[in-house]
Order: sequence, then C-alpha cells, then structure tokens
Amino acid sequence: MGGPDLPVLPEDDSMLSARFGREVANYFSGSPLNRLSFLRTDHDFLRAAFSHPSTAFLLMNSLNPLTKDDSHLAFVSHADVEPLTGADPFAKPEEELIKEFNSDKTQPLILFLGVDDKNLLPSNGTESGAFKFKEYNGSPYFAVDVTPRGTLTEASNSIIDALKAKGLTFQDHSPRRMNLVSPEAAIYGQARALLDWNARNPFCAQCGQRTLSVNAGTKRVCPPTDLSGSSDGKPRDRGPCATRGTISNISFPRTDPTVIMAVASADGKRLLLGRQRRWPAYWFSTLAGFLEPGESIEEAVRREVWEESGVRVGRVVVHSSQPWPFPASLMIGAVAQALPGEGEAIHLGHDPELESAKWFPLEEVKEALLHGTSGMGEGAPEGYKEGALRLPPQQAIANRLMYAVVEGWGLPSKI
Amino acid sequence: MGGPDLPVLPEDDSMLSARFGREVANYFSGSPLNRLSFLRTDHDFLRAAFSHPSTAFLLMNSLNPLTKDDSHLAFVSHADVEPLTGADPFAKPEEELIKEFNSDKTQPLILFLGVDDKNLLPSNGTESGAFKFKEYNGSPYFAVDVTPRGTLTEASNSIIDALKAKGLTFQDHSPRRMNLVSPEAAIYGQARALLDWNARNPFCAQCGQRTLSVNAGTKRVCPPTDLSGSSDGKPRDRGPCATRGTISNISFPRTDPTVIMAVASADGKRLLLGRQRRWPAYWFSTLAGFLEPGESIEEAVRREVWEESGVRVGRVVVHSSQPWPFPASLMIGAVAQALPGEGEAIHLGHDPELESAKWFPLEEVKEALLHGTSGMGEGAPEGYKEGALRLPPQQAIANRLMYAVVEGWGLPSKI
Repeated sequence: MGGPDLPVLPEDDSMLSARFGREVANYFSGSPLNRLSFLRTDHDFLRAAFSHPSTAFLLMNSLNPLTKDDSHLAFVSHADVEPLTGADPFAKPEEELIKEFNSDKTQPLILFLGVDDKNLLPSNGTESGAFKFKEYNGSPYFAVDVTPRGTLTEASNSIIDALKAKGLTFQDHSPRRMNLVSPEAAIYGQARALLDWNARNPFCAQCGQRTLSVNAGTKRVCPPTDLSGSSDGKPRDRGPCATRGTISNISFPRTDPTVIMAVASADGKRLLLGRQRRWPAYWFSTLAGFLEPGESIEEAVRREVWEESGVRVGRVVVHSSQPWPFPASLMIGAVAQALPGEGEAIHLGHDPELESAKWFPLEEVKEALLHGTSGMGEGAPEGYKEGALRLPPQQAIANRLMYAVVEGWGLPSKI
Repeated sequence: MGGPDLPVLPEDDSMLSARFGREVANYFSGSPLNRLSFLRTDHDFLRAAFSHPSTAFLLMNSLNPLTKDDSHLAFVSHADVEPLTGADPFAKPEEELIKEFNSDKTQPLILFLGVDDKNLLPSNGTESGAFKFKEYNGSPYFAVDVTPRGTLTEASNSIIDALKAKGLTFQDHSPRRMNLVSPEAAIYGQARALLDWNARNPFCAQCGQRTLSVNAGTKRVCPPTDLSGSSDGKPRDRGPCATRGTISNISFPRTDPTVIMAVASADGKRLLLGRQRRWPAYWFSTLAGFLEPGESIEEAVRREVWEESGVRVGRVVVHSSQPWPFPASLMIGAVAQALPGEGEAIHLGHDPELESAKWFPLEEVKEALLHGTSGMGEGAPEGYKEGALRLPPQQAIANRLMYAVVEGWGLPSKI
C-alpha cells in the first residue's frame, strides 16, 4: 500500500490484549519523546536543556517544518537559533517575565517538546556526553517558530537565509502530503499543534488584551500589567481578568475531539461510507464530525451518522485514536453497527454535508484497501481499475478503521 | 449505592455488543434531545421553535439551573423569558445581526438545545398540538442565560424575582452535588458547557475585539464592524481578523479531552488508585489528566499514569466516555494494564500532583464500591467502616471504570 511505516508498539501479552486484540497506533502518534510535562515551569531544567550540546531544535516557518529530505525533519543546533532566541532565553523565572511584560515586543516562541530518553532517534549531539537533569536523561528536543513577525522579523529572516544556503527547506506536510517517517511525524504534529494554538491566541478571549506565552510554549497567561508605551519605566495596570488567580482552560492549549467511525451494517457484511463533493472521483471515506459540548463519544457518533446519512447506529466501540494537528483535532476512531431494517436507510436531507453515502460490501472495501488507496493529492495507485472505489491512505485513521472491520474486528463472521 | 438512576441504553443484540459487552452510558450522557445541529443557522426554524406553545426554556443564573426540587429542573415558558429575550429574537437573519453589531449592547444569550422527538420528557406544552418543522417534530428545548449583566441586568432581575415568587430556585449542581435525574442532568450539562464557553469568550482571541454569539449560542463570530460610539449611525471598521472568511476552531465551543483510567496490575488482581491532598480521609480514585496536543488517547493514558505514579502502562482499551461540564471536559474512560515487574513500581517524585498512589486488591475495591461510595461533599454512607477505602459515586465515570475491572471487564480471571 506504499507510504511510510506506521508506529509499531512493543509485543504485548497482557490480558487486555489477549481479550481485545493488540493496540493499534496511528500515524502522528508514537512519539519517541518523553514530554516531562511537569518540568516545563522549571527554568533550571529548561536552561540546562536549551543550552546542552546534544539538544536538537526543530524550526518551523508558517507551520512548515525544516526538512532535510522528503521523509525526514532537519534538526539544528543552539548556535543556529541563537540569533532569534538569544543564548539563554529561560534565564529569568516566569514571574519576572510576566512582570516585565511589554506587548510592543514580539517574544520568540520556544516549545520544549521532550527528551529522547529511550534513544530512539538518531543522535544529534556531539561527543560531549548525554544530557542529564536529576533522574531524567536523553537528548532534549525543542521547536522554535521562525516565522518572520513583529520585532523578530529580521532575526527570523537571517536564520531562514542561513538554512537555505545549507540546502535545507521548509516543507508543507499537511494531510495532502504525509511523507515523514512516523516518529518524526509525531514530533512535527506536536510542534505544529502547539505553534498553531499560540498563533491563534495572541489575545485573551476573556478580557481582550495581549497574552504572553509561558510554560515553554504550553500556556498563555494574561499579565496584570503592560510596559507598552511607558515613558517612566513603570508598567500600566491592565485591570482585572477572570483568568488570573484561578485556573482557566483558555490559558491552555486547545484540542478538538472529533469522532470518526466505520459503521457496519446490522449483518456485519457492509460498510457505510460517504463522499464530499470536492473529493476526487470514486473517493469515499468513513463519516466524521466534531464532538459537541455535553456529548459522550458514543452519542456524538450516533448524532453525526444520523445527521449526515440518516442511518441509526446502535453499539459504538472505540478502536483507536489519532492526533490530527490540522489544526488541533483528536480523532477518536470507532467501529459501530447500524440498527437493522429501517435503521440502515440512507437519507441525505438532514445536514447537506455529503454528496453521497452508500453501503459497500466488505469485499469491495477490502479490494479498495489493497488497490485503491493514496494520498488525496496524489493520483490513483498502480493496479487501480478506473471506476473502482478509492480510499484514504493508511496514515489516515479512516483507513485503519475500515481495515479493522474488513479483518473481522468485533465482527465474529469474518469475510 | 444510592444516587439517581444512570442512563440506560436499549437492549442490544448486535455483533459488537456480543463481542465487547453492552455499551455503558455515564451520567451527563443519555440526552433525550435531538440537537438538530444543522438547523441552528435556520432562523425560520428557530423562530417557529422559539415561539411554539410546547417549547420549554431552561433558565440558568451564574451557571446554576432553575430547579423545581432537588432532582428535577424547572422549565418555563415563552412568556417567562420574553422580558429578557423579546418576543421574537430570531426575527432577523444572522448576517443582519452581524452588520448591526454594537458592542455597547449586551445580547441575550439563547441556546437551542434540541427537540424531544422521542417524547422522553414530561410534556411542557399546552393542548395546542405538537411542534413540527419540515420532517422534524417534538417539543423544542432552549436555555436562556438570566445572569444579570450589562444592559440586561434589569430584565434579568425581573425574571429572577418573578420565579422566586413562584417558589423556584437556582441550584448548584456541580460535581459535589449530582442529584438531577439522568435525562435532565444531560440537558443541564449541555446548557452549562455552552453558557460557560460563551461567558469565557466575550473577546476574539485572534484580534482582541468583542465577539457576537450566533448559531443559537453555538458559535461566536468576530464582526467586521461595530456601531459602538457611532454618532452618525455608521459602523466603525474593526480591521482584519483571521477568523473571518475562513473557518477557525476558536469560533466554536471548546471541549477538553481528558483521560481517566482504571489501571490493573499485570496479573489483573490489583487496581492502581491515587489520592489528592485535599480529598476526604481514605478517599481514592482512578488517575486522570488532560490530553495534550499531538497525543493519542493511549499515549495520554501512559504519560499521565507515569507522570503521576511512576507506573508504566502497556495496553489501553477505551471503556466509555462522559461529558463533564466543569467547565468543558470530555472524560475518556479507559481500562489499562501495567507492565509487569518494575513497571508496577510506584514513584511519586515526577509530578507532585498526588499525595499517595497505591495498588489495591480487587476485593478491597469491590467492598468499597458496595459500602464506601458517596458524593465528595457528603459524609461516608451507611454501612461504611471507618478506615476503609472510600470511592466516588456511580455518577462519576471513575466509579464505572473500577466497577468494570472488578466485574472482570477485559480480565478473564474474574474475582
């Protein structure tokens, strides 16, 4: 079926695995990094990690990652990012940075991604020894936003030009082009989601004033004062904001839960697929949609399937999940089964999102999984017969869900 | 074990159910309403629904719902809300409301919740006949925010006073007090989550200007102009904003995916539970935490368990889910199994969130599920022996996950 390798989990002989089958890991998951999320506020740790010779920096320009070839990210060193970040950006503690907040100055955006504590990635370090902080070790990984913006435009452009001179480029790795090897796709996904969230939230949704990125890129606070426009060096009071003094979810990154489901017929012999108008000819996929406030996953699956296709769903079982950083989704993949009889009737008249929805025999889906999958931006694969069903590639959880049903997951009557 | 009934799903003899067991529905799910989400932009529909005699209105004051007794919401009629909403608040189409946007005027917040198309709720209508719009019918449900604020303070207070005179009260139904019968808890959860989201987002996080609620309370747009302060009746241009002209997730309600997991030991005979310092004595629960950008559910479970307890988790299986409107979580409930040997070693030194984490024999957990559960705000239940394990009530998904493991869910060696 082509495409890069998918994440592979270790052998597993647990009772859960024996009963429910092996866990499925999807593209964009399987990160080799330990996030050490509890150290993001520890500037002693961040300073040591940022300046260590083994540390690797992923650069992103307008959300496109620096790459060395079609399937690998390029990681650069401390010296490469210093013109933008300064030598020691975590020198001051967060409280001080908040006190000194000046909304006229563009802050460099630096994400701490984690440490490669299992040595799963090619070493980027020198011979100077591994990084170690307390009981934690492994090469640290950061992402730095080099998108030219505000008072950092010149510094960003100088870095971009220097990298171009080295033959490195920023490449689009959006859903139309998922070529990165899977551990690097997971790192890119984490960085992309967080940089995008920061870019969408320069202002406080609660009070309308500018926010400041803290916790190594994973929190945005609404500082109580601002030095902007001050002539005497004294900060201006910004008035009260409900996000201060309490924990507000809007200070933290947003992830949008999304349900995506392979719906089998009541007899387990057919699969419900739909297509959108703008898709290539003969292309279908599983139905999907955003979960709403106050809904369970199971309810969201039943609502979305009924709204989009008219089909009524009974049992819903979660199969696996996929981070989907375009911009911030968590794809929750389910296998579900339609209610018999009238429950399977297709009606597109509720929500006019789909151009078509149809029941496909499992045999036809199986054939398409073998000979009809490709990236949506690519032509049909070799062996494809014009007019036959086309499906998303295996990097998409939709593909894995269809595969699960075709292989008899949850359906005792295997084809 | 006391407490209100939990949502019950219809009998289910599907293949999925035969293989994986019946679906579990948790408290706050099981809504009796069909959201008809695709009609939220249709003002012909909204006008007809808003003014129909069978329509029921849930009022909320500072996120507390109007109730008629401890376990039931009170629904009021069109005449009761009219002083705040006006008789026909959906008379103008959205485009016109956006053009007329004036940030000096407080807009009433009116949510369309759905229609009771299966007649699951006590009829609130008169004898005047059922509501019908195109192929959809059933009593419509709306929620209206009567929290006194801005230019609506007086109208809100007049409504609140009139209801108090009728003996109705606004009651707190936060996690310390989950008394509502389950279909009404689901309606309250939906309304609470959406009103809270609107209250946290009066400003555009992208450009810092005031937003306007549209789509019957489920979207906030950043209007291009503002009549505020205009003396000649011409609106002021607000400059560009990236949320306009494209679809931005920040215009839509936010839901925070959260993982919560019952972690069994490798031999399936013990369960990992933790406790926070501020909890009542002897009280433990399952571990939980927010999913992060770029993570799968399974990765988030493994990360959170390791960060909080040091335990290393292998296979993760999603069990069920629970909307948790405090303020906006989706609880994704999993059963997981620890890796054997060193994988089970407890170490609290990473993230100091827990006061304690321990392995409990399933027998002890079973005993506590029978005699040690209560709301956290309540005293220990009857039959509880001082010093024994205390656990959350069955309205909490934590309780259902522990129950599942104790009952042998996923673990062939039943106790």
